[in-house]
Amino acid sequence: MSNVSQQQYREILVSLTQGVLTITFNRPHKKNAMNLALVKEVMAVFSDIADDSSVRAVVICGSEGNFCAGGDISDMHSDAGSEQDKQQAIWNFNRSFGRMVAQVNQAPQVVITLLEGAVLGGGFGLACVSDIAIAHQSAVFAMPETGLGVVPAQIAPFVVTRIGLTQARRLALLGERVGANQSQALGIVHFVCESQEALQAQLNEVLKQVQRGAPKANANTKALMLKVGTVELETLLDEAADVFTQALSSDEGKEGTQAFMQKRKPSWCE
Amino acid sequence: MSNVSQQQYREILVSLTQGVLTITFNRPHKKNAMNLALVKEVMAVFSDIADDSSVRAVVICGSEGNFCAGGDISDMHSDAGSEQDKQQAIWNFNRSFGRMVAQVNQAPQVVITLLEGAVLGGGFGLACVSDIAIAHQSAVFAMPETGLGVVPAQIAPFVVTRIGLTQARRLALLGERVGANQSQALGIVHFVCESQEALQAQLNEVLKQVQRGAPKANANTKALMLKVGTVELETLLDEAADVFTQALSSDEGKEGTQAFMQKRKPSWCE
Amino acid sequence: MSNVSQQQYREILVSLTQGVLTITFNRPHKKNAMNLALVKEVMAVFSDIADDSSVRAVVICGSEGNFCAGGDISDMHSDAGSEQDKQQAIWNFNRSFGRMVAQVNQAPQVVITLLEGAVLGGGFGLACVSDIAIAHQSAVFAMPETGLGVVPAQIAPFVVTRIGLTQARRLALLGERVGANQSQALGIVHFVCESQEALQAQLNEVLKQVQRGAPKANANTKALMLKVGTVELETLLDEAADVFTQALSSDEGKEGTQAFMQKRKPSWCE
Repeated sequence: MSNVSQQQYREILVSLTQGVLTITFNRPHKKNAMNLALVKEVMAVFSDIADDSSVRAVVICGSEGNFCAGGDISDMHSDAGSEQDKQQAIWNFNRSFGRMVAQVNQAPQVVITLLEGAVLGGGFGLACVSDIAIAHQSAVFAMPETGLGVVPAQIAPFVVTRIGLTQARRLALLGERVGANQSQALGIVHFVCESQEALQAQLNEVLKQVQRGAPKANANTKALMLKVGTVELETLLDEAADVFTQALSSDEGKEGTQAFMQKRKPSWCE
Repeated sequence: MSNVSQQQYREILVSLTQGVLTITFNRPHKKNAMNLALVKEVMAVFSDIADDSSVRAVVICGSEGNFCAGGDISDMHSDAGSEQDKQQAIWNFNRSFGRMVAQVNQAPQVVITLLEGAVLGGGFGLACVSDIAIAHQSAVFAMPETGLGVVPAQIAPFVVTRIGLTQARRLALLGERVGANQSQALGIVHFVCESQEALQAQLNEVLKQVQRGAPKANANTKALMLKVGTVELETLLDEAADVFTQALSSDEGKEGTQAFMQKRKPSWCE
Repeated sequence: MSNVSQQQYREILVSLTQGVLTITFNRPHKKNAMNLALVKEVMAVFSDIADDSSVRAVVICGSEGNFCAGGDISDMHSDAGSEQDKQQAIWNFNRSFGRMVAQVNQAPQVVITLLEGAVLGGGFGLACVSDIAIAHQSAVFAMPETGLGVVPAQIAPFVVTRIGLTQARRLALLGERVGANQSQALGIVHFVCESQEALQAQLNEVLKQVQRGAPKANANTKALMLKVGTVELETLLDEAADVFTQALSSDEGKEGTQAFMQKRKPSWCE
């Protein structure tokens, strides 16, 4: 088991309870805009739990009423070094967002985002790779980048995959602000809640459903789905049959089919 | 013309009326869960009609109030042979579902599913490749696989293509049960009907619309659309221009444009 | 600056006001069905403005209550030349639609379609590549091709990309006519307006939002989004970081971030 929740972090809070790891972005004075330190800490957490199937779900949220206002542009410019060094620093900073979002997308755990207040730029991108996105009524989604003369560069692929090119080009080119209900209609989020109580209840319901799935089966299912479109169909189906055959002969598969026959809950479902 | 409807089947019923072939899954004691025999029979039917443009539409439905409860896991394990043989049997059984779904997806006919009661696992996958999906109010859609410690392996690509990654990962990882109205909102089905009468009326309306399209034009259109994303755009458009040019010079194209000019119905539309 | 609006056109009207280029299809006697001359004129306009960042948006609409009824089939057959020449003429005519739609799709400007009355065949295809599609209540969308014995060949890829395979196969195979409200539900259009006044107000609102984005940032964002799925993810993200780094150091990026810090509007936003 990883010791992820015992480590020290500067920009995030991390806690682990009953197989659920919660990451809270903790830069409320910046509406939780991400600096490089935060990005690195999030990546370190996901690396730590990459092989830990005792962690069933990861919940990502923000402190004090905002999810995340994007990249912290005050952290983007470096004064030190040559012009070339500065350019490289900006490149690295920008690229790190895409690395983080891609890593969260590929996490073997079920990733749940709780979306309140500002869900902007990189924060929007992160919401777009969560397996389950739950929005509070207060959530506002937008890609404001082109209004600042820059580009939603590292999140573009994830937004297009999430909501399709039709809505992605609209939101990016107009910099339009989208509320919680519309975000559900556009397919950004799965659930909208009118209060903190409702949000917590919805999260609990989702976590209960997550527990019903076998951990490795969930991880393998997610990995297969993320491969769709990147591998030729017949190749993917051959690989999927390998995964199925191994799953059925595994401890999970034996326990799961036996429990089904015996009309009882499987061992992982408690 | 194929003699598909005169053949004998064990697990399905097959009938042909006025160019519409109806396949009824007939294992009501198992909620029409698919065993290997059923899968092979369905594939044989689609092979038989692969070149038969007199069959304009294929309707797939289930007997006694359920569409299909997935793969019949009691049929999955084989007692005979070595451990390796058993593994191979499971692999083949699983892989056969993907072969069947891919074949139905590529059928030159318009494929219509009538979805009632259980639409689970492989049955859900099959619904996801129908050109037109009509749900009865009673329909319940789910991928319960991970709850059994296994993986919705052969259907994952078809579900992702049908409803997008955003909803596919949610449904697969939560094993969530989705009713008819929600299935329409998610883009699984095109129509929802509140009664058997309404379902039959909707089917008749769809079949009337199918008759308006020229058989080969419909088949070519479907084949082109299924290629989108698998071939580079300019290549696909060149190929599409070949298809168009041939279609316009064909008997269908001549009859169709003449009928249009003469403001009458074309010959295939009766 | 291009002199596009001073040129003479036969099948379209072109005007340029405050960075907004308006193209009006002007064949009202044919419900603005496209002949080869129209297609060539539209392509020439987009070629002329391809490097002109003073043109911020292109509005495409049709004269006298219809957007565009598709390809003009009376223009499709040529009497001159050998059979082979005729076939080649048809091929070229058909292929030109796909070239035009692809060019409009890739335009660096924000492309807005105003959709009224007939939005059929090639007209439907064109609507499917607009960044922002605004429908009047009167709009009717359909792919009637297979009813004429031919194939929606050049538009198939753009329709599938716009609304997904699930709805694209339905609309193409049934030749179904879809009204404005349903077109919004299917993701064909972004906005529906009940009157000409509302349509104009929505257009003005969109144009105001377009002005907020920096011209090159908008063009780069659009180009990146159109590459999603055609390039491997990591490669695309590397490229996106190049684009971001250049954008931040550009005049637009400097002005945009400064304006943001100083809580004022950037120079391009007037």
